[in-house]
Amino acid sequence: MTTPTERSWLVLADGYLTGRNAKTAHGVIRYGHGDIAAVLDRDNAGASLRTVLPELGRDAPIVSSVQEGLAYGPTSLLLGVATAGGWMPEHWRTWINEAVESGLEIANGLHGFLKEDPDLVKLARANKVNLWDVREPPADIPLFSGRSLDIPKRTVLTVGSDCAVGKMSVSLELAAAGSANGFSTEFVATGQTGILIAGRGIAVDRVISDFVAGAAERLVCETHPSSDVLLVEGQGSLWNPAFSGVTLGLLHGSAPHALVLCHEAGRTTTDEPPFVPLPRLTDMIAVYEAMASTVRDARVACIALNCRGLSDRERKRTLNEVEEQTGLIADDVFAGGASRLWDAVAAALPERRAIRHGSR
Amino acid sequence: MTTPTERSWLVLADGYLTGRNAKTAHGVIRYGHGDIAAVLDRDNAGASLRTVLPELGRDAPIVSSVQEGLAYGPTSLLLGVATAGGWMPEHWRTWINEAVESGLEIANGLHGFLKEDPDLVKLARANKVNLWDVREPPADIPLFSGRSLDIPKRTVLTVGSDCAVGKMSVSLELAAAGSANGFSTEFVATGQTGILIAGRGIAVDRVISDFVAGAAERLVCETHPSSDVLLVEGQGSLWNPAFSGVTLGLLHGSAPHALVLCHEAGRTTTDEPPFVPLPRLTDMIAVYEAMASTVRDARVACIALNCRGLSDRERKRTLNEVEEQTGLIADDVFAGGASRLWDAVAAALPERRAIRHGSR
Repeated sequence: MTTPTERSWLVLADGYLTGRNAKTAHGVIRYGHGDIAAVLDRDNAGASLRTVLPELGRDAPIVSSVQEGLAYGPTSLLLGVATAGGWMPEHWRTWINEAVESGLEIANGLHGFLKEDPDLVKLARANKVNLWDVREPPADIPLFSGRSLDIPKRTVLTVGSDCAVGKMSVSLELAAAGSANGFSTEFVATGQTGILIAGRGIAVDRVISDFVAGAAERLVCETHPSSDVLLVEGQGSLWNPAFSGVTLGLLHGSAPHALVLCHEAGRTTTDEPPFVPLPRLTDMIAVYEAMASTVRDARVACIALNCRGLSDRERKRTLNEVEEQTGLIADDVFAGGASRLWDAVAAALPERRAIRHGSR
Repeated sequence: MTTPTERSWLVLADGYLTGRNAKTAHGVIRYGHGDIAAVLDRDNAGASLRTVLPELGRDAPIVSSVQEGLAYGPTSLLLGVATAGGWMPEHWRTWINEAVESGLEIANGLHGFLKEDPDLVKLARANKVNLWDVREPPADIPLFSGRSLDIPKRTVLTVGSDCAVGKMSVSLELAAAGSANGFSTEFVATGQTGILIAGRGIAVDRVISDFVAGAAERLVCETHPSSDVLLVEGQGSLWNPAFSGVTLGLLHGSAPHALVLCHEAGRTTTDEPPFVPLPRLTDMIAVYEAMASTVRDARVACIALNCRGLSDRERKRTLNEVEEQTGLIADDVFAGGASRLWDAVAAALPERRAIRHGSR
């Protein structure tokens, strides 16, 4: 079974490239390690990615078939689009088979697992290619033990007012900003898009509930030996009742030293039924800090505000208001504000401890 | 596949009957519906259960083999002992096979599933007996949607300062006390012992984390049409970092109208590493109420204090102290205090709404 050491992606986004369902594909294009060899989308074939989605900041040819994409030398086919029915259209199967027969790894961010398809498993084995079901958790996750409290690293967790406010992007942008400031940072992935970007991680919402904190603990304990500051991707929200358990398990298991509260400007209730009213920012800060303190005192260092849809002027006014309300730095990483947020995070971290070297 | 409508248990507790590992067996003997036909424990064979474990309040013969136990007419063999290695000793296998060949259902509360043993599955099929892996969650649990907020029933959840403080027993004792007071109560099981006692339920800690709240919601939505007050078995604690996510998912998913805080007298930290210091009772009450309010305002109605190890005098003094500290009724269901606690619960519930009748 061959796993590429450095991936070059053929991104399968046929019919979905510009929509919300392509969140995972967009994340990998924007933040992923490795190249984007080509994007498969028959609707936009012939155009360039930069023309169609300039905000992703990368270019690649858009092609109309796997065969055409192969010319650009990909190592891996990415299934990074949430399809309408939840599982893949039938013609994808043909493309996947073609990719496997051409020696491409298949990286699957969908809920269903490729490993549950015996025909595909057989074909992959015959062609010695890796089927990577990104959401499949490892089988040997231990219960939480408290060892995350003993690692000689500083841990920063993004927490949210709700789902889909930008926690993953904030963690990634902070990791980049910290790195630009001379820190040895590492992004720690806890969801499928993050895992595809980082090349490793555990989808904590897919873990048996007893083991969520244990999974988070394992993730922070198994980072690169030379990493100093860990930026852990948060999940859900304490105010989103569908996912609050995952949020709390991650908060306790990762044992952060500092938190970054992520919020979308103007959101006053959760996005999904039963549309829970969101508390004031100062109250959310107090609750996250109180709940974190079970394992370690951690302060909310700053507010990462997602200002999508606002004009520059509205954004500046809103950020000022939030800073006044909370007494904390507030900025928008989607509008270039990661650097100010990083400074606030760095100031909130404890002194660096001696890094113990050793294997992961 | 035959599932008995009324179970009569042959309880397999060989070598463990009087120890802590027999918690599930003890729970079923104490609270379970159906008869206890016999108990299999070679160490105490020939004695009566009432002599060996008078505190369980039931009698049954203790036998030294499945063959001997069959004489007492059991319908089901209970695997309700957490064995030292986590999985069953080899000679159990012989007993299980004998039980299957004699037409007994096998009810398994262990972590490993009988259904993963192909030989046993084959034997069970040939003998038309049911293999009941109690911890195996249903495959079709939905995400939380908020429908638990619309049921015309009153829901009471036990919450804890820690694991193993008596939440299940308190829920069961309150269900019995409410019933004795003329209320139509139903115990809602969320863990393996509770499920064996009630004959139904979902082990919420075995559910994929994304679906914990959905599982809790489904449980309260699928209770008996004639039930009025639901006593939901709590799990874990917001202060036990290994399980806090399960606790919060259950709190939000079941959407209780009232809470009962369960605590063990004298416990000042969680029982397991990292031995989290427990806040004062008044602080725990405030946090549980604050976290519950995301879905519904619910007050802690009373304190269920587990006073094991205390003398009568110490117990009374401790209960008085707790009542003074919290301003709430405090009592110990293990010392006959369920009735006072029930009165406090009933007073904390909203008015009964019209019960909509319908199938589960």
